[in-house]
Amino acid sequence: MPTNATFSEFSKACVSRVEQALEQQLPGTSIEPARLHEAMRYATFNGGKRVRPILVYASGQACRGAPEALDIPACAVELIHSYSLVHDDLPAMDDDDLRRGKPTCHRAYDEATAILVGDALQSLAFRLLTHHQDQLPADTCLQMVRLLATASGSRGMAGGQAMDIDAVARELTLPELEIMHIHKTGALIRASVQMGAMAAGATEQQLLLLGHYATAVGLAFQVQDDILDITSDTDTLGKTQGKDAAANKPTYPGLLGLDGARQKAQELLDEALNALVDFGAEADQLRHLARYVVQRAH
Amino acid sequence: MPTNATFSEFSKACVSRVEQALEQQLPGTSIEPARLHEAMRYATFNGGKRVRPILVYASGQACRGAPEALDIPACAVELIHSYSLVHDDLPAMDDDDLRRGKPTCHRAYDEATAILVGDALQSLAFRLLTHHQDQLPADTCLQMVRLLATASGSRGMAGGQAMDIDAVARELTLPELEIMHIHKTGALIRASVQMGAMAAGATEQQLLLLGHYATAVGLAFQVQDDILDITSDTDTLGKTQGKDAAANKPTYPGLLGLDGARQKAQELLDEALNALVDFGAEADQLRHLARYVVQRAH
Repeated sequence: MPTNATFSEFSKACVSRVEQALEQQLPGTSIEPARLHEAMRYATFNGGKRVRPILVYASGQACRGAPEALDIPACAVELIHSYSLVHDDLPAMDDDDLRRGKPTCHRAYDEATAILVGDALQSLAFRLLTHHQDQLPADTCLQMVRLLATASGSRGMAGGQAMDIDAVARELTLPELEIMHIHKTGALIRASVQMGAMAAGATEQQLLLLGHYATAVGLAFQVQDDILDITSDTDTLGKTQGKDAAANKPTYPGLLGLDGARQKAQELLDEALNALVDFGAEADQLRHLARYVVQRAH
Repeated sequence: MPTNATFSEFSKACVSRVEQALEQQLPGTSIEPARLHEAMRYATFNGGKRVRPILVYASGQACRGAPEALDIPACAVELIHSYSLVHDDLPAMDDDDLRRGKPTCHRAYDEATAILVGDALQSLAFRLLTHHQDQLPADTCLQMVRLLATASGSRGMAGGQAMDIDAVARELTLPELEIMHIHKTGALIRASVQMGAMAAGATEQQLLLLGHYATAVGLAFQVQDDILDITSDTDTLGKTQGKDAAANKPTYPGLLGLDGARQKAQELLDEALNALVDFGAEADQLRHLARYVVQRAH
């Protein structure tokens, strides 16, 4: 993946790498319990944009790491993301029938299987990080386990989901909304960036700057999601348009108006780019990615 | 915990140690999201027998390890066990209202919270294992993460649960039933024994022998569970008596008859004890525990 690739070339190469690695790392469908393994693959190979793995590769590249050392953390963050979608879609949670235009895991299989798919994908994410010792020292692998576990748990993604549930039909302030999103989506995005850097042998200073970048990009991602929920049609989104607004979920356009939300996204993009000023051209893909997050149409 | 303590004294000391450690390691209920943290504690402090932590301490003692090095693996296996109970009790799975005489997590809170409680307890288990480096080398911690992740995932506990779901209302052979239980309950019991040994600096040969012990004890535990489901009353069990038989779940008494099942439990006990012949008095608690598993009344 050359530094001067366009973002489209770079992200295609990342998607190809991580999907090949996931293909290798997920248990085969001929291994028992076969139906569970099939469902785990269904949930993982679902046409996702692989934003988090792309962040791992782009951040690793910014710290001059070899792509080979980044495949495992890229798989791990995507497995955590996939598990969270499966559980979020369950009837007791968001009750979604479609995910990117295809039946959600519990619709394609059944609820019990979908619960277990999520549980097993989470275990697999941590297991993969322990098989990385031919590439990285044990201490670095353990730090990645710690980062990912913290980002996934009650003080991270799962906690943000709990805050989201508590927030439905109740007026959130802007700071409360941000705290929820920093947990719900931000923590895993931040972990993706930091794990990529860690696997590339980043310095403490680099980790700190990339942490700032990731926090801004994570929030920008959410603001743009909220904007698209209002402005896009269901076909483009691959999920039901206007669902969040209809469910009375607090959104940025709801709190700031559509123009205010767009301005907020732009400010966050500027923040993200500012965090990268000390990096050279090797951080260009991170810069492209930040712009893509704010400019994407779905 | 002196080697010559009775099993009752030893197990009381283990329960006290692990509950104090869990109390310290679980996020406080004043930390946001407060309701999720409260529910995580509800699910963990539920009057459980703490069999898996006791196995960690007993196995560590058999390898002459210090109890201080065993607290974290003891917490980790119990958190995984607690999460599995919360998800198993969900309406889409076993649909249980009571667990040890108290409302199950989704009845005391709600289904969405119960799903997140399980997810967050799993993350926390892995996170704890990374905070153990003042006691153990990073390499040992990473090996414990690998063991626990393998034991929890689709080739372990979650996989066994999937096999169990597939097996309802279908006649299993004895080998199929054993494969299911080796995954569903055996894998975590084995991981408990092996993590205790690992944290105590066991040799490869000790790990192998303790693995044999754990496999036999794990199956014995399940055979006895099936026997108790038939012979105990609901009050003693703390859950609905005869539920497995009524749900058409395959059981050992169903396949072997009650006497056959009792004989099987006895054979497994003998196997477990045989695996320990090369150990001295320091393995006595493991021996007591194997007997307790087969002789317990609930």
